[in-house]
Amino acid sequence: MATKTKRFILPEDEIPTQWYNIQADMINKPLPMLNPGTKKPLKAEDLYPIFNQACSQQELNQTDTWIDIPEEVYEQYKFYRCTPLVRAYELEKALDTPAHIYFKNESVSPVGSHKLNSALAQAYYCKKEGVTNVTTETGAGQWGAALSYACKAFGLELAVYMVKISYQQKPYRRSIMQTFGAQVTASPSMSTRAGKDIITKDPTCNGSLGTAISEAIELAMTTPNCKYVLGSVMNHVSLHQTIIGLEAEKQMAMAGEYPDIVIGCFGGGSNFSGIAFPFMRHNILEGAKTQFLAAEPSSCPKLTRGKFEYDYGDESGYTPLLPMYTLGHNFQPANIHAGGLRYHGAGTIISQLLKDGYMGAVDLPQTETFKAGVFFARHEGIIPAPESCHAIAAAIREANKCKESGEKKVILFNLSGHGLIDMAAYDQFLAGDLVDYSPSDEDIAANLKDVEPLQ
Amino acid sequence: MATKTKRFILPEDEIPTQWYNIQADMINKPLPMLNPGTKKPLKAEDLYPIFNQACSQQELNQTDTWIDIPEEVYEQYKFYRCTPLVRAYELEKALDTPAHIYFKNESVSPVGSHKLNSALAQAYYCKKEGVTNVTTETGAGQWGAALSYACKAFGLELAVYMVKISYQQKPYRRSIMQTFGAQVTASPSMSTRAGKDIITKDPTCNGSLGTAISEAIELAMTTPNCKYVLGSVMNHVSLHQTIIGLEAEKQMAMAGEYPDIVIGCFGGGSNFSGIAFPFMRHNILEGAKTQFLAAEPSSCPKLTRGKFEYDYGDESGYTPLLPMYTLGHNFQPANIHAGGLRYHGAGTIISQLLKDGYMGAVDLPQTETFKAGVFFARHEGIIPAPESCHAIAAAIREANKCKESGEKKVILFNLSGHGLIDMAAYDQFLAGDLVDYSPSDEDIAANLKDVEPLQ
Repeated sequence: MATKTKRFILPEDEIPTQWYNIQADMINKPLPMLNPGTKKPLKAEDLYPIFNQACSQQELNQTDTWIDIPEEVYEQYKFYRCTPLVRAYELEKALDTPAHIYFKNESVSPVGSHKLNSALAQAYYCKKEGVTNVTTETGAGQWGAALSYACKAFGLELAVYMVKISYQQKPYRRSIMQTFGAQVTASPSMSTRAGKDIITKDPTCNGSLGTAISEAIELAMTTPNCKYVLGSVMNHVSLHQTIIGLEAEKQMAMAGEYPDIVIGCFGGGSNFSGIAFPFMRHNILEGAKTQFLAAEPSSCPKLTRGKFEYDYGDESGYTPLLPMYTLGHNFQPANIHAGGLRYHGAGTIISQLLKDGYMGAVDLPQTETFKAGVFFARHEGIIPAPESCHAIAAAIREANKCKESGEKKVILFNLSGHGLIDMAAYDQFLAGDLVDYSPSDEDIAANLKDVEPLQ
Repeated sequence: MATKTKRFILPEDEIPTQWYNIQADMINKPLPMLNPGTKKPLKAEDLYPIFNQACSQQELNQTDTWIDIPEEVYEQYKFYRCTPLVRAYELEKALDTPAHIYFKNESVSPVGSHKLNSALAQAYYCKKEGVTNVTTETGAGQWGAALSYACKAFGLELAVYMVKISYQQKPYRRSIMQTFGAQVTASPSMSTRAGKDIITKDPTCNGSLGTAISEAIELAMTTPNCKYVLGSVMNHVSLHQTIIGLEAEKQMAMAGEYPDIVIGCFGGGSNFSGIAFPFMRHNILEGAKTQFLAAEPSSCPKLTRGKFEYDYGDESGYTPLLPMYTLGHNFQPANIHAGGLRYHGAGTIISQLLKDGYMGAVDLPQTETFKAGVFFARHEGIIPAPESCHAIAAAIREANKCKESGEKKVILFNLSGHGLIDMAAYDQFLAGDLVDYSPSDEDIAANLKDVEPLQ
């Protein structure tokens, strides 16, 4: 039947077999992570006590542009990849915009988000190195659900610290992790020193990703044969997520277009990096002019209002010092529903790229993002995760600009996950009960007191 | 990379463009539906006051084997179809069975189930005939969610009566319908005579699909320019769902196999018919020997313990008399989590095929189905809907038989939907709080008193 194509899917033998390591192509490499005691640059070996060795090496690899996806991981990818690239005809029509809007639909993974792309890789490397137990943190639960799936696939035991506000707001994500066999603890908890310190200071603390990371690292360091794995922020996570953009690049070619703007929501950077880096490569190497836009919540605006300094990746200072755009590792983000975006800092690659002008950022109030999510659902049929609503809201802003200017830009955004387990948030939005948050300049300045200046 | 193929997807131009109408091939045609007053066989026109005309004609069409899918519906199908056929290697390994197990993954539709296949068709026909308002019932909410999506896609207003127990147990499915813009009312409600009658008799009534159907039909009949649409039971719904089996047939060919056993869960018959009829065609016409197995809940066992008689499709007797395996239209099923299977009767095609020995049925206790669902999730990574757990449990029973006998049967089941919005049920199962229900012979006999004998 001669109908227009909405959905582009690569044949199985076209699914990329390598990840793209943008560090190798960057003109200004990311600044080194530092040992907090000596202030000396870290080597991969310095990360081995916390992370598996393969990921530690990927973290600091600034030379190999392409990294082979292990066969065992590729096998698992094939269960849900290639994910569809969709031309959002209905959204375009509803916005009455001349822009062409595409989205990469990562919500079709069995756990409902892009997080599985790195979870499978990290679980595989842990297993291969003889690790038996794994710990992690999770915000809204997307990462925890993905890692629970991955650990079950590779036969690892998993303990998850889930940010307390999400543990309460999103009990079904907890159930998903438990169904896959993971142990889930609300963070801050009394099971670690880091958690106890925080609860003692503030018994009503709702938790944050930074705190949950501290708890998970502490458990990993005090448990034999156990490694910590992280769902965002780190360079190796961004690396694994490039499968998104590498597929999208081929799929855009199937559609006969190339993006003028690429948009992803932004928490620690995993889904944004995944969709953006493979296209950004052509900006770096070939002078392509694609614009890259990270969509962050106004309540946690590290890219738009943070400072580029050395800071810890977690609340308690267990991580190395990372060169990052940060709001300070003690920053406690407001309780927005997009739990996956409640993180104080950006990864080291992203921070360098933002500083060097390869990408931009925009901050969005919560109600605008839910309005965009409902609008998207009613026209494209998919209820997006609250995190993904940020990318949609930013895409709608760009499409509206095109309407004003008459420009036929090609906009590509990443639909990082579906919102079927976030319906309580939609209920609140539809009832008019959601509010916007934005930290004051004083709040931000106060939390930035403790960061270390860049040299 | 030379890895084995887990997932078979048809290229877009291979998606079937026609539905398969098994009525045309059946040797014994389904018995006629009867006007309850005159007891005379119904004509399509007799259905026009309730249903749209196109579906009314499809309902009674016993001559055309293939029915064209309208272009507008096909356009919508392409948003999520072809759905994957998956070889369940991990499940096979975990069961240590020589059987080859495949499942058709209808859970990847944007609303999470197969229901969209008929929702889009029915909404389209309503729109085409100038209908503006649509009513329906929903059990667990899968059908209501799908129809909300379809009505939004085709610009129709929708009112949904949702079975009260599901309205309470599954608030997020209600939120999904509301996000798509539908009005949702818990049934029995005080908004219809049918609802009032039941509430007056039993103020604590949890509702059933039969009651919700009565309410939806009553609203349609008393509202101008409004039609009723149904998510299962009817022949035209089964027709639309054959897209599942037609795709699966081509996908099994891609995998180089043909099923010995085809399994679907069974409520009113929509997903079972969809996966089964295209394969059953080869049994009817070419003497193929595939076995077909409908998996129903022990708590609502119309196929295994019901009677083949004339009965109403709804509680209040608004529908024609249908020749069906039934437990009686007053049968109130126990409150199992598989809300979509809580229906007293089977469609007229299925009933005839069961009577004629073309298919079999098996009834499964709730706890066995959840055990199967968790086992499946831990090995295949997808958390199934409670309804779909019945198909999985039946497939596991068959795979275990193969292990005993050493037979390498090819088993195909339909994964009708995911369970991500049913996590409260999984919580209860994991906590050991779920129980099994089975009606006594006396209960069944009492409810069967009011059915009309077959001639």
